[in-house]
Amino acid sequence: MDLHILDHRLRVTSIGKSGLEQYTHPLIKLIFLRNRTRCKFFSLTETPENYTVVLDEEGFKELQPSEHLQVEGSTWLPLNVVSNGNASSSSQAVGVTKIAKSVIAPLAEQHVSVFMLSTYQTDFILVREKDLAVVVETLAEEFNVFREEGGESVPVHSQDACNGLQRNGREVPQATVHPVLIPENQFCVMSLDPDTLPAIATTLIDVLFYSNRSKEDASVDQDMECIKFFSFSLIDGYISLVMDTEAQRQFPTDLLFTSSSGELWRMVRIGGQPLGFDECGIVAQISQPLADSDISAYYISTFSFDHALTRLLFHWRKQFYGWRIGILSD
Amino acid sequence: MDLHILDHRLRVTSIGKSGLEQYTHPLIKLIFLRNRTRCKFFSLTETPENYTVVLDEEGFKELQPSEHLQVEGSTWLPLNVVSNGNASSSSQAVGVTKIAKSVIAPLAEQHVSVFMLSTYQTDFILVREKDLAVVVETLAEEFNVFREEGGESVPVHSQDACNGLQRNGREVPQATVHPVLIPENQFCVMSLDPDTLPAIATTLIDVLFYSNRSKEDASVDQDMECIKFFSFSLIDGYISLVMDTEAQRQFPTDLLFTSSSGELWRMVRIGGQPLGFDECGIVAQISQPLADSDISAYYISTFSFDHALTRLLFHWRKQFYGWRIGILSD
Repeated sequence: MDLHILDHRLRVTSIGKSGLEQYTHPLIKLIFLRNRTRCKFFSLTETPENYTVVLDEEGFKELQPSEHLQVEGSTWLPLNVVSNGNASSSSQAVGVTKIAKSVIAPLAEQHVSVFMLSTYQTDFILVREKDLAVVVETLAEEFNVFREEGGESVPVHSQDACNGLQRNGREVPQATVHPVLIPENQFCVMSLDPDTLPAIATTLIDVLFYSNRSKEDASVDQDMECIKFFSFSLIDGYISLVMDTEAQRQFPTDLLFTSSSGELWRMVRIGGQPLGFDECGIVAQISQPLADSDISAYYISTFSFDHALTRLLFHWRKQFYGWRIGILSD
Repeated sequence: MDLHILDHRLRVTSIGKSGLEQYTHPLIKLIFLRNRTRCKFFSLTETPENYTVVLDEEGFKELQPSEHLQVEGSTWLPLNVVSNGNASSSSQAVGVTKIAKSVIAPLAEQHVSVFMLSTYQTDFILVREKDLAVVVETLAEEFNVFREEGGESVPVHSQDACNGLQRNGREVPQATVHPVLIPENQFCVMSLDPDTLPAIATTLIDVLFYSNRSKEDASVDQDMECIKFFSFSLIDGYISLVMDTEAQRQFPTDLLFTSSSGELWRMVRIGGQPLGFDECGIVAQISQPLADSDISAYYISTFSFDHALTRLLFHWRKQFYGWRIGILSD
């Protein structure tokens, strides 16, 4: 299999809930006006805490600094696994499950922090630029590694790498067990022809920028143990949307599409307190037991918490408690 | 003929060019998200100086005070002339020309300041609420005056009015002759089914909120003696758009409509220095000679200047210089 280091230099940012109004102008530009921006990697995820915006340097220029904008200090690079047809994987699973053992686990062992961004089309593994040498050496054992540069894929070799285990120079600490939240709402992972994006513009603008106003709705949601989670990404011309069924009802049924009709997903939110960006192994802890059972899962990191999506709730309950007990009994 | 005092209490505001970004969130809500606002009267006009926003009190609530927002101190009421079928007008003209002699001239004589807002559908004559008694007494000579209240038209009588001429208590000053600008660009006055507004949302957002960025375009415009003028209004569910042919080319041809196909208008901008809101008789000076020659004209006041539109340039040159000489020779 091939591993591509994509030609995007990314920033991970967070806009506070009360600051969204101030960032409406640049965000609408980045989402809808492709002719006015050279941003090629844009992702916006609303959670109850904030809006996580991951974007390349061209996009980042559009966000004026303010008290509402938090910026993670590093530059992140997106990795992407490409099946080159030679791999005879027996797995039918999609999402982070496919790369749990080959990418996520080895990086966790080397104590490389990852920021995951699953989309309808693929799964992006974001790593810090400064960790790249460790990443390449770690993954070169299993992958042909390429760096995308100006539309070309250039092979990368790990000669310029580090030595042995603990190449990142850190001790692997005891794995932390984080509290989780399993909200009641069901989610769909969808896509859209970019040419039809204008047709859903007012609905998408309404959902993204104005749906936070109704306090009554929020309290109803809390009663029902649903959480606000809406993710939009426009990456290299491909659109991906993750939304719950309530948000989905606001969109025209004929424009958004998903792989299998009506396929719904349940979410586990990982973290009681904000997770930060330095702890490693969180994605690995979640994805490994799923991979053991070949259960498809999407995984979306945000500024404060991680979010995993699987098809059926009972899988989660079983796998998750299994995983938790496994960790606790260590 | 009937004159209706409409059931809207309006504010006239201006957003500075550099402040638009900050007001994108409320303006997009007012333009596109009718379910989220009770605003029924909204007009936004971009000129080279600023954005003039005229809106009712429900809409005005959405605009947070800031250094970029100027608000005219008065509450304004929109008047509207309704032909009730009895009037046997020989005029074929549309726009402000139709009401020049019956409304505009008498109000100017009484020194009532008016703010004009022509749309595709009709012409709104905005007067200050505090001038209403004078307005009613002045216009009751020619019109049946009704006040719209909660969907009903209630007859208004002028018994509670003032006395004789100079009822406004002010001296009628010498009419001022303002410099004018006749830009080269040609304009169209169009409408749109409100249900198809979402289909042009991204284009309209682009034109309204993002077209100001390209400095090169601006200098080209200046060379060609064109000025930026774009007006959008959504009043009681009816949409009106005034834009030049360059802006028009960005919109799909099948959704916007105009009364006669391809009808183009030329503009005269009145005022060298900002006109303010207290000088009276400006609309009258422009509209009376047009009415004498039965020349259709739209008239759009903005925060700084007035703008009249007529079908053909030679009318303007002839009428305008005629009018100017007429005033000068007084």
